[in-house]
Amino acid sequence: MNNFRKIMAAVAAAEIDALMLESPVNRQYASGFDASDGAAIITAEKAWFFTDSRYIEAAENTITDAEVLMVTREYPYSKRINDVIASENIRKLGFEEYSTSYHAYEQWREKLNAELVPAQKIVTDLRAVKTAEELSFLIDSQRTAEKSFNEILPLISTEITERELAAELLYRFQKNGAEDKSFDSIIVSGPHSSMPHGVPSDGKIGKGFLTIDFGVRKNGWCSDTTRTLCVGEPTDEMRKVYEIVLEAQLAGIAAAHEGATGSDIDGAARAVIEKAGYGEEFGHGFGHGVGLEVHEAPYASPSGVDPIPAGAVISAEPGIYLPGRFGVRIEDVIYITETGCVDITELPKELIIL
Amino acid sequence: MNNFRKIMAAVAAAEIDALMLESPVNRQYASGFDASDGAAIITAEKAWFFTDSRYIEAAENTITDAEVLMVTREYPYSKRINDVIASENIRKLGFEEYSTSYHAYEQWREKLNAELVPAQKIVTDLRAVKTAEELSFLIDSQRTAEKSFNEILPLISTEITERELAAELLYRFQKNGAEDKSFDSIIVSGPHSSMPHGVPSDGKIGKGFLTIDFGVRKNGWCSDTTRTLCVGEPTDEMRKVYEIVLEAQLAGIAAAHEGATGSDIDGAARAVIEKAGYGEEFGHGFGHGVGLEVHEAPYASPSGVDPIPAGAVISAEPGIYLPGRFGVRIEDVIYITETGCVDITELPKELIIL
Repeated sequence: MNNFRKIMAAVAAAEIDALMLESPVNRQYASGFDASDGAAIITAEKAWFFTDSRYIEAAENTITDAEVLMVTREYPYSKRINDVIASENIRKLGFEEYSTSYHAYEQWREKLNAELVPAQKIVTDLRAVKTAEELSFLIDSQRTAEKSFNEILPLISTEITERELAAELLYRFQKNGAEDKSFDSIIVSGPHSSMPHGVPSDGKIGKGFLTIDFGVRKNGWCSDTTRTLCVGEPTDEMRKVYEIVLEAQLAGIAAAHEGATGSDIDGAARAVIEKAGYGEEFGHGFGHGVGLEVHEAPYASPSGVDPIPAGAVISAEPGIYLPGRFGVRIEDVIYITETGCVDITELPKELIIL
Repeated sequence: MNNFRKIMAAVAAAEIDALMLESPVNRQYASGFDASDGAAIITAEKAWFFTDSRYIEAAENTITDAEVLMVTREYPYSKRINDVIASENIRKLGFEEYSTSYHAYEQWREKLNAELVPAQKIVTDLRAVKTAEELSFLIDSQRTAEKSFNEILPLISTEITERELAAELLYRFQKNGAEDKSFDSIIVSGPHSSMPHGVPSDGKIGKGFLTIDFGVRKNGWCSDTTRTLCVGEPTDEMRKVYEIVLEAQLAGIAAAHEGATGSDIDGAARAVIEKAGYGEEFGHGFGHGVGLEVHEAPYASPSGVDPIPAGAVISAEPGIYLPGRFGVRIEDVIYITETGCVDITELPKELIIL
């Protein structure tokens, strides 16, 4: 699996003669090959992939649709790339302006015989639309995370610390076939649950809401899920807030389809929370793209003015946070279609009381 | 604990009026405060730390030796920084050219009323010299990793996969108080052990050498250790290669002291391996600095021409790799002193045969 042909077509339509990809994630997207070092050059007609002696054999065996060549101390990346610049008569070379450091940019500018043009958006936009194969990987990651979550449910009590529970969850991610977590799990309980991005503490899990925001990276693809449980009986207010968040999530999901903007989707969920009087307590956006990175384009937030394309995979995660008291967030991942969306998260959403 | 005063003195000695730190690791080094968002400005006389509403309370309570101010949508980083530029009459503002993306640089260049000057080396050099407190954190990380390693030894057999063993190790890191691994564990067995940076596979641990390269991140500080064990009886050649690597490591450690260059230290180890006829099979450098990052300055490699300062903490990790057959690497971490060095790794180095 690689996306060279898709990128070639995008280069043909852009104001550049070729695109240089160096960041690990975009190299992997282009080539299907994961290595700590490498670079790809893609013109409208052809692609090249360069890497060093550690990876060259695997790269040659894995990568199709591109010419694979080795770099060495004597024949470094700059020389390989200048060869292509010369043979293909490249004048404008697109580069990844968000992933390339100022220092690296200055080095390239000095060494390469082409004008460097910021062009990362080409790949960002392509990556936003998932293929059927990519979707199947994302679903597999989601299932692996859900299985792991279900396995730690019996461990939850006021006798285990937030951090210990995070360790148990990560352990199961790996046991269930993931390479790694896709981000540091957020496991926050009691009043602590009011912090949308709190860090698991060494304190034991407290009574009240327990928010668990978690994801795996499996075959390179990320999952992202949040469930809020209740340790002990919730108050009426807690039940009410939980139901508002769930209703808001369902409203956002109902508003999600090809062509809706990020702001449309976010707004549908936000309206529910605002109407209930908690607008000030929903301080973040409704969702973000999920793929090879756990946060990527497109974004379903109040500032999202572009239409969301069919094939996008985004999180759906409204929340209400009452500082010093409690917080609730419920997060699924949805796949945008022409007529609506498919929720690829299977975990139930009724409030679990432990 | 913070290093603002140290950075102020370095700014006073440099050709800049102030230094801007944005990367998480350098912000943490400067302020002692760990947050996903923030920026520090340090002149020769004073320091400022800016962060957003999520972190402002904790920052105000934690950070000393700097003025802590909040950024908001209406009063963003650029405005806060321009205030300091104006009040302190800053013309040359140092920035982190290796950590700042081209895109972020262009944004700063447009918004800030000062000339941006690459100056990351100032902090890189300061970070290379550890304080007594930083050393104690590094030793604590090292002990945590060693304890975890000892706990997985009983699990090693030809019935467990490399990847499962990596999961068991990471689980114990966290149980023993680390936040995380400092890098993905390298666990490679049998012929696989000849790959210096191999990835744990889903294959069961094979007979022969088993290389385990592992480290924790605890309180922000990294450890790094490698041990090569033998599953089943080693051949005479395997024993010989193991002894050569160990002798090379001890020679490098014996050559390490304030003022020796990276090349001196690497060369002392390399001479042992070359003399034994395996020079071509030791393809990487002797060591790298270890601190808030697992790979940082200074580097003990053939190209290291600068004298290593007292207070530096570096890895000592020669290896011999025979492709398709086996590999051996032994890695400790050492603290450089005026007269020699202190090995802060306590795990024994005799070949363990399982």
